[in-house]
Amino acid sequence: MLKAKVYVTIKQSVLDPQGVAVQGALHSMGFGEVESARIGKYMELTLDTTDRAEAEARVKTMCEKLLANTVVEDYRFELEG
Amino acid sequence: MLKAKVYVTIKQSVLDPQGVAVQGALHSMGFGEVESARIGKYMELTLDTTDRAEAEARVKTMCEKLLANTVVEDYRFELEG
Repeated sequence: MLKAKVYVTIKQSVLDPQGVAVQGALHSMGFGEVESARIGKYMELTLDTTDRAEAEARVKTMCEKLLANTVVEDYRFELEG
Repeated sequence: MLKAKVYVTIKQSVLDPQGVAVQGALHSMGFGEVESARIGKYMELTLDTTDRAEAEARVKTMCEKLLANTVVEDYRFELEG
Protein backbone atom coordinates (compact mmCIF):
# COMPACT_ATOMS: atom_id res chain seq x y z
CA MET A 1 0.00 0.00 0.00
CA LEU A 2 1.49 3.29 -1.09
CA LYS A 3 0.26 6.80 -0.48
CA ALA A 4 0.70 9.47 -3.14
CA LYS A 5 0.61 13.11 -2.13
CA VAL A 6 -0.13 15.25 -5.19
CA TYR A 7 0.27 19.04 -5.26
CA VAL A 8 -1.31 20.95 -8.13
CA THR A 9 -0.48 24.65 -8.40
CA ILE A 10 -1.37 27.33 -10.91
CA LYS A 11 1.61 28.32 -13.08
CA GLN A 12 3.37 31.51 -12.00
CA SER A 13 2.51 33.25 -15.29
CA VAL A 14 -1.22 32.52 -14.93
CA LEU A 15 -3.55 34.82 -12.99
CA ASP A 16 -5.01 33.21 -9.85
CA PRO A 17 -8.28 35.05 -9.10
CA GLN A 18 -9.01 32.85 -6.06
CA GLY A 19 -5.62 33.79 -4.62
CA VAL A 20 -6.24 37.48 -5.27
CA ALA A 21 -9.61 37.20 -3.48
CA VAL A 22 -8.04 35.44 -0.48
CA GLN A 23 -5.28 38.05 -0.30
CA GLY A 24 -7.90 40.83 -0.38
CA ALA A 25 -9.93 39.15 2.35
CA LEU A 26 -6.83 38.71 4.54
CA HIS A 27 -5.90 42.37 4.02
CA SER A 28 -9.34 43.57 5.04
CA MET A 29 -9.12 41.35 8.14
CA GLY A 30 -5.94 43.14 9.19
CA PHE A 31 -3.32 40.76 7.80
CA GLY A 32 -1.57 43.43 5.74
CA GLU A 33 1.70 41.47 5.66
CA VAL A 34 0.29 39.02 3.11
CA GLU A 35 1.96 40.10 -0.14
CA SER A 36 0.51 37.37 -2.29
CA ALA A 37 -1.59 34.23 -2.03
CA ARG A 38 -1.73 31.39 -4.53
CA ILE A 39 -4.30 28.64 -4.17
CA GLY A 40 -3.72 25.12 -5.40
CA LYS A 41 -4.96 21.61 -4.76
CA TYR A 42 -3.58 18.94 -2.49
CA MET A 43 -4.63 15.34 -3.12
CA GLU A 44 -3.94 12.14 -1.22
CA LEU A 45 -4.32 8.90 -3.14
CA THR A 46 -4.09 5.47 -1.52
CA LEU A 47 -2.70 2.96 -4.00
CA ASP A 48 -3.13 -0.79 -3.68
CA THR A 49 0.35 -1.65 -4.93
CA THR A 50 3.85 -2.08 -3.57
CA ASP A 51 5.74 -1.48 -6.81
CA ARG A 52 7.14 1.98 -6.28
CA ALA A 53 8.58 2.48 -9.77
CA GLU A 54 5.35 1.45 -11.47
CA ALA A 55 3.28 3.58 -9.07
CA GLU A 56 5.46 6.57 -9.88
CA ALA A 57 4.82 6.17 -13.61
CA ARG A 58 1.10 5.60 -13.12
CA VAL A 59 0.56 8.58 -10.78
CA LYS A 60 2.38 10.72 -13.36
CA THR A 61 -0.11 9.53 -15.99
CA MET A 62 -3.05 10.23 -13.63
CA CYS A 63 -1.77 13.78 -13.15
CA GLU A 64 -1.32 14.37 -16.87
CA LYS A 65 -4.70 12.90 -17.81
CA LEU A 66 -7.01 13.94 -14.98
CA LEU A 67 -5.64 15.56 -11.84
CA ALA A 68 -3.90 18.58 -13.36
CA ASN A 69 -4.64 20.77 -16.34
CA THR A 70 -1.06 21.02 -17.59
CA VAL A 71 -1.86 24.02 -19.80
CA VAL A 72 -2.26 26.28 -16.77
CA GLU A 73 -1.17 24.11 -13.82
CA ASP A 74 2.01 22.51 -12.55
CA TYR A 75 2.03 19.35 -10.48
CA ARG A 76 4.41 17.42 -8.30
CA PHE A 77 3.93 14.37 -6.12
CA GLU A 78 5.59 12.24 -3.45
CA LEU A 79 5.14 8.54 -2.76
CA GLU A 80 5.11 7.32 0.83
CA GLY A 81 4.92 4.00 2.59
CA MET B 1 10.15 37.71 3.55
CA LEU B 2 8.69 34.40 4.65
CA LYS B 3 6.68 31.89 2.67
CA ALA B 4 3.89 29.95 4.36
CA LYS B 5 2.73 26.68 2.82
CA VAL B 6 -0.73 25.85 4.12
CA TYR B 7 -2.40 22.46 3.67
CA VAL B 8 -6.12 22.17 4.33
CA THR B 9 -7.63 18.68 4.32
CA ILE B 10 -11.09 17.34 5.00
CA LYS B 11 -11.27 15.49 8.34
CA GLN B 12 -11.10 11.71 8.08
CA SER B 13 -14.60 11.30 9.54
CA VAL B 14 -16.16 13.66 6.98
CA LEU B 15 -17.35 12.45 3.57
CA ASP B 16 -15.35 13.88 0.67
CA PRO B 17 -17.63 13.78 -2.40
CA GLN B 18 -14.99 15.38 -4.63
CA GLY B 19 -12.54 12.64 -3.66
CA VAL B 20 -15.13 9.95 -4.34
CA ALA B 21 -15.75 11.45 -7.79
CA VAL B 22 -12.02 11.58 -8.58
CA GLN B 23 -11.58 7.98 -7.44
CA GLY B 24 -14.50 6.90 -9.65
CA ALA B 25 -13.05 8.76 -12.62
CA LEU B 26 -9.61 7.19 -12.09
CA HIS B 27 -11.20 3.72 -11.85
CA SER B 28 -13.10 4.19 -15.09
CA MET B 29 -9.86 5.33 -16.74
CA GLY B 30 -8.19 2.04 -15.79
CA PHE B 31 -6.44 3.07 -12.57
CA GLY B 32 -8.07 0.36 -10.45
CA GLU B 33 -5.29 0.47 -7.85
CA VAL B 34 -6.60 3.76 -6.43
CA GLU B 35 -8.30 2.69 -3.20
CA SER B 36 -9.22 6.15 -2.04
CA ALA B 37 -8.73 9.78 -2.98
CA ARG B 38 -9.07 12.79 -0.67
CA ILE B 39 -8.98 16.29 -2.08
CA GLY B 40 -7.73 19.25 -0.09
CA LYS B 41 -6.33 22.70 -0.65
CA TYR B 42 -2.74 23.84 -0.86
CA MET B 43 -2.02 27.54 -0.36
CA GLU B 44 1.19 29.55 -0.63
CA LEU B 45 1.29 32.88 1.17
CA THR B 46 4.14 35.35 0.84
CA LEU B 47 4.54 37.31 4.07
CA ASP B 48 6.32 40.64 4.33
CA THR B 49 7.92 39.93 7.69
CA THR B 50 11.03 38.31 9.08
CA ASP B 51 9.69 37.55 12.55
CA ARG B 52 9.18 33.82 12.39
CA ALA B 53 7.47 33.41 15.76
CA GLU B 54 4.99 36.18 15.09
CA ALA B 55 4.34 34.90 11.55
CA GLU B 56 3.61 31.44 12.98
CA ALA B 57 0.98 32.85 15.34
CA ARG B 58 -0.58 35.05 12.65
CA VAL B 59 -0.78 32.32 10.00
CA LYS B 60 -2.47 30.12 12.62
CA THR B 61 -5.06 32.87 13.13
CA MET B 62 -5.53 33.23 9.34
CA CYS B 63 -6.21 29.49 9.11
CA GLU B 64 -8.68 29.52 12.01
CA LYS B 65 -10.52 32.61 10.76
CA LEU B 66 -10.52 32.28 6.97
CA LEU B 67 -8.45 29.60 5.27
CA ALA B 68 -9.90 26.49 6.91
CA ASN B 69 -13.36 25.59 8.15
CA THR B 70 -12.24 23.89 11.34
CA VAL B 71 -15.60 22.17 11.83
CA VAL B 72 -14.95 19.84 8.89
CA GLU B 73 -11.34 20.56 7.92
CA ASP B 74 -7.87 20.12 9.40
CA TYR B 75 -4.96 22.38 8.54
CA ARG B 76 -1.22 22.42 8.92
CA PHE B 77 1.41 24.82 7.65
CA GLU B 78 5.14 25.28 7.23
CA LEU B 79 7.14 28.50 7.17
CA GLU B 80 10.09 28.84 4.81
CA GLY B 81 12.78 31.38 4.11
